[in-house]
Amino acid sequence: MVDAAAPQKGLEHVVMGDSRIALVAGETGGLVYRGFDIGELAGRASYEAVVHLLLYGDPPDAAQLADLTAALRDRRALSPGLERAADALPAGLAPLDALRTLVSSMGDATFPYPPTIAQGLELIAKAPTLLARAVRRSSGAAAVAPPLGLGHVANYLYLLSGRPPTPAQVRALETYFVLLADHGMNASTFALRVVLSTNADLIAAASAGLAALKGPLHGGAPARVSEMLDAVGTPDAAETWVAAALARRERLMGFGHRAYKTEDPRAVILKRIAHEVAEPSRLRLALAVERAALDALHRARPDQRLYTNVEFYGAVVLEAAGLPRELFTPTFALARTAGWTAHALEQAGDNRLIRPEVRYLGPPSGRHWPDGLGPPA
Amino acid sequence: MVDAAAPQKGLEHVVMGDSRIALVAGETGGLVYRGFDIGELAGRASYEAVVHLLLYGDPPDAAQLADLTAALRDRRALSPGLERAADALPAGLAPLDALRTLVSSMGDATFPYPPTIAQGLELIAKAPTLLARAVRRSSGAAAVAPPLGLGHVANYLYLLSGRPPTPAQVRALETYFVLLADHGMNASTFALRVVLSTNADLIAAASAGLAALKGPLHGGAPARVSEMLDAVGTPDAAETWVAAALARRERLMGFGHRAYKTEDPRAVILKRIAHEVAEPSRLRLALAVERAALDALHRARPDQRLYTNVEFYGAVVLEAAGLPRELFTPTFALARTAGWTAHALEQAGDNRLIRPEVRYLGPPSGRHWPDGLGPPA
Repeated sequence: MVDAAAPQKGLEHVVMGDSRIALVAGETGGLVYRGFDIGELAGRASYEAVVHLLLYGDPPDAAQLADLTAALRDRRALSPGLERAADALPAGLAPLDALRTLVSSMGDATFPYPPTIAQGLELIAKAPTLLARAVRRSSGAAAVAPPLGLGHVANYLYLLSGRPPTPAQVRALETYFVLLADHGMNASTFALRVVLSTNADLIAAASAGLAALKGPLHGGAPARVSEMLDAVGTPDAAETWVAAALARRERLMGFGHRAYKTEDPRAVILKRIAHEVAEPSRLRLALAVERAALDALHRARPDQRLYTNVEFYGAVVLEAAGLPRELFTPTFALARTAGWTAHALEQAGDNRLIRPEVRYLGPPSGRHWPDGLGPPA
Repeated sequence: MVDAAAPQKGLEHVVMGDSRIALVAGETGGLVYRGFDIGELAGRASYEAVVHLLLYGDPPDAAQLADLTAALRDRRALSPGLERAADALPAGLAPLDALRTLVSSMGDATFPYPPTIAQGLELIAKAPTLLARAVRRSSGAAAVAPPLGLGHVANYLYLLSGRPPTPAQVRALETYFVLLADHGMNASTFALRVVLSTNADLIAAASAGLAALKGPLHGGAPARVSEMLDAVGTPDAAETWVAAALARRERLMGFGHRAYKTEDPRAVILKRIAHEVAEPSRLRLALAVERAALDALHRARPDQRLYTNVEFYGAVVLEAAGLPRELFTPTFALARTAGWTAHALEQAGDNRLIRPEVRYLGPPSGRHWPDGLGPPA
C-alpha cells in the first residue's frame, strides 16, 4: 500500500526527473546553464544570448542572436486588449500580483499546448511591458515608448522610468538577469512544470510560476534586505543591530539557501557587481551587515554554516540599477521567464502528469451525516 | 549524491505528506471527506454544509450552517475595482482563463499569508460572480443581481443565465459541486500547495490551482465528452463510432483515472443523477456510448480494465443543469475552491517548502562562451 509509506515532506531529496537545463551544484557552489558556468557568462553574455542558450541549448551565432533580439523586440508592444487589461487592474495590487494577473490575461487561443519557442519569446518580451505599464499607471504616470534599438534589459529600465538608463545601470541589471535566468528545479519552476504536466498551456504554467514567486520562502524576500539595510542605518551599527535582531529571534534576510551548502555562486558575482555600481556608502553598509550577520550566525550555530544568498547582493545591485524595492521580485520574475520557458519546453518534450500522493490521517470512513443539512428542497 | 538517485517521474507513488481532508481509495473506489463517504453526502448535504465540513473538519450544526451560508452570501458582490477588471478582460480569453485571471486580480493586501477561513470564503463566494460576469460580458449581456436568498449553487446558475434555475437543475448541480469539492492530492491541489509552501498567499495559490485545471490531463476534458456524444449522434451509432475512433487511435473521453483501479465513485453517483435529470434521448446516447466504449476498451486491452470516470457523466449532468460546455471546467473549479481552501489551510498549518530535485543530464560544465555575445557596451 502506497498509503503506508513514510511521507517525504517538502519532497526534499526526491528526484522527480532529468533535466538538461541547469546544474545547481549545491555542495560545491556552482550554477551551470547547459554546460556554461555562470561565471563564464556574467558580463560576457547579453540576456538575449542567454535566452538563446536556455531555449536552444547552445549559444547563438551572430545571425541567430540578431534574429532572437529582433524577435523579442518585435513582440514587446501590447495589443489594445492587453493595454486595457493593464489599465483596469484593481488598485492596490502589488506589482508582482499585477504581473501575475496580466501574464494570466495573455492566455488566449494563441498559446495552445504544447509550448513553443515562439510562445516563450512572446512571454519573455511582453512581461516587462505589462509590468511597467501597471507600475507606471499605479503611480499616475502614462506608459512610455522607448527608442526601438534598446536591448531587452535597457528597454525594461526605460519603460519603468521613462528615461534612458545609464550604461552602468544596464550593465548591472543585465548581469542580474543573466544570473537569475534559471536555477534548476526551484519552487516556481516546479509549480510551472506541475501545471504544464496537465497539458495546460505556457501562460497558465507561467501564471503558476509567478504565483510561487510571491512567497518569501522563494522569491518574495529581496526587498526585505533593503529594509534591513535601512533599519541598520550605518556600518557602525551593524553588529549591535544584528545581535538585537537575533535576540528577538528575527530572521536575517539574505542568508542561507536550501540548495547551497557553500557560497551561492550568484551571490559571489553580485557582490562583485555591487562593488562596481553601488553607492559607496550603501556598499559599505551592506558589507558591514553581511560581515556582522555571518559572524553572528556562525557563533549562534557553529555546526551549521550559513552563507550569503542571492538576495543579499541582489538587492544592492537592484537598488543600484535604479529599481524601487517593490519591483525586486517582479524583476527576478522577468529574468526567470527565460528559464521557465526552457523548463516548459523540456517538460512537454517528455511529459508525465506530476501528482504525488498523500497519506490520509483523517477520520476513518463511515461517519453518518446528520439530517437537516441538505440542499434546498 | 542525490543526483545519482533514479528519478521518480511524475512523482507517482511518492508520498509527500499527511492529510486529514480526503481519502481517495483508488483500489476500492471510495472517496471520503473527513470521514464521510461521498455516497453519504450526495443529495443529503448542501454545498455550503460541505464547505463547512472541509474547512472545519466536521459538519455544521444549524447555527453554524446559517452563519456560513450568510458569510458566503455577504461576500458574493464584487468591489467596483473587480468589476472593472472583469469588464476589461481581453476578448478571446476562454472562461477558465478569465476566471484564473480574475481570481488572480483579487490578490491584494487583504489576503496576507497565512490563509484563513475568512479568506477562503471570500474566494469561494466571489469566484462564481467573477466567472459569470466575464462570461455574460463576453456574450454582450449585462451582469445580473439574483434575489438575495438563493443558495450558493442556485445563485451561480442565476448569475449565468439571468433567470431562476429549475429545482432539478439546482439539485443536479449541487450534487456535482459536492462530489467535486475535493479529491485529495490531485494536480491542481498539488500546484496550490506548492505555491502556498513558499508562503505565498491563498489567491496566488488558487491562481496556480486554476492554472493546473487548464490541462486536459487534469481538468480540461469534460467538454470533450459532450463533443464526443454529439459526434456519435445516436445510440445505434455508438459501437461503430467507438470502433472507428479506436482504429484512428483517438482517445475516448471520460474513461480511466490515474487514482482509481475500479469504478470512480463520483461517476457512479453522477450516472444516477443523470438518470434523474438528463434529457431522455441524451441519456440513452450516453449509456450506449459508455457501453460501447467499455466493451471496446476491454477487448482492446483485456489485461487493463478501464472504468468510466467523473468526466463522462459529469458532462451529462452539467448539460442537464443548463451549463454550456465551455463552462464545464470552470464550474469544476468553482466546486473545487472549497477543497483548495482546506488544503491551503492544512499546508500552512505544518508547512515545508515543496521542492523536489532533478538529475542534471546536460553538458558537463566547462564549456567556453564565445566572444561577441556580450551585453551592449
